[in-house]
Amino acid sequence: MFTAKAKSEVLKELIDVVSTLVDEVKFNVSKSGIAVKAVDPAHVAMVDLSLEKGAFEEYKGNDTELGIDINKIREVLKLARAGEIISIDHDEDKNRLIMSVGNIVRRMSLVDTAGMSDPKVPNLDLPAKLSVRTEELRQGIRASESVSDHIALISSPDSFEMISEGDTDSVNLKLPKDLLEELDCKETVRSLFPLDYFSNMIKAVSSAESITMHLGNDYPVRMEFDIAGGKGGVKYLLAPRIESE
Amino acid sequence: MFTAKAKSEVLKELIDVVSTLVDEVKFNVSKSGIAVKAVDPAHVAMVDLSLEKGAFEEYKGNDTELGIDINKIREVLKLARAGEIISIDHDEDKNRLIMSVGNIVRRMSLVDTAGMSDPKVPNLDLPAKLSVRTEELRQGIRASESVSDHIALISSPDSFEMISEGDTDSVNLKLPKDLLEELDCKETVRSLFPLDYFSNMIKAVSSAESITMHLGNDYPVRMEFDIAGGKGGVKYLLAPRIESE
Amino acid sequence: MFTAKAKSEVLKELIDVVSTLVDEVKFNVSKSGIAVKAVDPAHVAMVDLSLEKGAFEEYKGNDTELGIDINKIREVLKLARAGEIISIDHDEDKNRLIMSVGNIVRRMSLVDTAGMSDPKVPNLDLPAKLSVRTEELRQGIRASESVSDHIALISSPDSFEMISEGDTDSVNLKLPKDLLEELDCKETVRSLFPLDYFSNMIKAVSSAESITMHLGNDYPVRMEFDIAGGKGGVKYLLAPRIESE
Repeated sequence: MFTAKAKSEVLKELIDVVSTLVDEVKFNVSKSGIAVKAVDPAHVAMVDLSLEKGAFEEYKGNDTELGIDINKIREVLKLARAGEIISIDHDEDKNRLIMSVGNIVRRMSLVDTAGMSDPKVPNLDLPAKLSVRTEELRQGIRASESVSDHIALISSPDSFEMISEGDTDSVNLKLPKDLLEELDCKETVRSLFPLDYFSNMIKAVSSAESITMHLGNDYPVRMEFDIAGGKGGVKYLLAPRIESE
Repeated sequence: MFTAKAKSEVLKELIDVVSTLVDEVKFNVSKSGIAVKAVDPAHVAMVDLSLEKGAFEEYKGNDTELGIDINKIREVLKLARAGEIISIDHDEDKNRLIMSVGNIVRRMSLVDTAGMSDPKVPNLDLPAKLSVRTEELRQGIRASESVSDHIALISSPDSFEMISEGDTDSVNLKLPKDLLEELDCKETVRSLFPLDYFSNMIKAVSSAESITMHLGNDYPVRMEFDIAGGKGGVKYLLAPRIESE
Repeated sequence: MFTAKAKSEVLKELIDVVSTLVDEVKFNVSKSGIAVKAVDPAHVAMVDLSLEKGAFEEYKGNDTELGIDINKIREVLKLARAGEIISIDHDEDKNRLIMSVGNIVRRMSLVDTAGMSDPKVPNLDLPAKLSVRTEELRQGIRASESVSDHIALISSPDSFEMISEGDTDSVNLKLPKDLLEELDCKETVRSLFPLDYFSNMIKAVSSAESITMHLGNDYPVRMEFDIAGGKGGVKYLLAPRIESE
């Protein structure tokens, strides 16, 4: 059973985060909220999202799996103004989702969840932890996009750095410790990532003003940020690229 | 003879309404104003528009037919700011239209009206009449566009409904009597329409806050609304699609 | 040697003006500022731009030639907010340009200037001189673009006129003397120009509210305007088209 009401921007944030990696996804509904875990088709990145009951205006749920076509939800969200309340109901008999905005009701078929296994989130031991303003990351990405397809993330005991190197040009964003909200790093670590994935992930962050990053040496990065004013959280994992010498 | 001055938005509204159906059109100029009747090339829809002399800042006209290339008028309108006055003069010797905005003068050749017969507006007896806020119709259309190519308009004694049904999904906009400005309907009637035509017509409404609809059972819909602050009016007729069972 | 700091809009104006004609260009750096001269690949137009030392927030330069890829500069400018300061340094050892915005550093290779000769700006004796508001020119261009590929510029003792003539339509912008800031013209002169070049040049003007034009009979036009609040200037030369009768 699942019936809920939420502000359109709460759902929009959820959909933006997940759609970065997949077009269809399984919502794991429980009494306490919604959890979503998904891996992109190329198995390069993973999202692990949770949205508490308290993030909704109204919420009633029992253990249920909903197979969601993300584009359909997005179509409904486009009808809503900021702050407008959207109702969502699971019609179990017909296995449909019923969403209402204003006087409009959209009934949508659900996707079969049979083939959607829950990915196991790996427990990574990442030695460096730091917190960066989202806007700084966005600027670094914008600057890098014309230079290379990759981006190196580097944490040292006194700074965080993003470096993009092309054949003739390079871009460097260096944030010393005093421009970071947090920096916990004993020795310098560096990993290289595909810029398109990293860019899409950072662009999907809508309300969080800062992102916590966990980094290692040639290891995946784990990025964590709040959604729904802290009543939900996202963990993104992104696999590294091997650096060619 | 025809010479007039009008606010750019009055001409823009006229052009938007007519361009929904045709690229070239005949303006029937008379002493009392301008009348335009046109049928789209596929003979699915008709527009019957009139703009009184009083809608213009200045107006002098005798019985004349002007063959108008709508795109050329639109190009001139793009040069004008809101509220700016546009002059229009018919140069009878050269059969050209001369339009002025600010310090710019555009002279344009007119289209031959020989092949443009005046369509006869059918006198339909449509049992249901109702008045809906334009914005509600727009929302309903936006919601329907991803679901189906058709839209059913349904009037009952206590509500107006728009329904779009696709293979897996459906959209429903239901407005009970108290959300309608007018509802005069003895028994439920329903007709199905091509969504693209209906959508283009409603999008062409710029200033009218509500639209009066006349509906029947598997019959055309007649939509009426004001232009030029009530100093002009539009009637759109749209043919129904046969509903397959 | 070259090291400078400038407001982003000063550099943007410089780049906009030059990119109208070329993708790569040579900056002639001297103690007193930067000079740029360039001819477009079709040899139809020329730009002659100078930016004084005083247009920069900080400036140190010795005679140097910098081969600039305009798109790369533009990419950096997109990262800056209005009013934000951009640093530029010439790394002579590696012949690279280093630009900084906020915490971002972009290193870019320079283009080889060996093949870039300085075009000689011809000394034209143009009998008519007038000064027009940029916005009027823009309107005239907008109005003309749908009518013809050419535009005639006409100066008479009492007005300035732009005329575009197509097969069926024409556009005319006539500015009598009292709408011009300056008009020094003994007898009527007229030259025809390619509209795309003229349009791109006028669109590249960002801060100058008026443009001084020097015109002759079937002769090039020279257009002059200020950049950087008067601390720089641009001369555009555009070759005429032969008018067919």
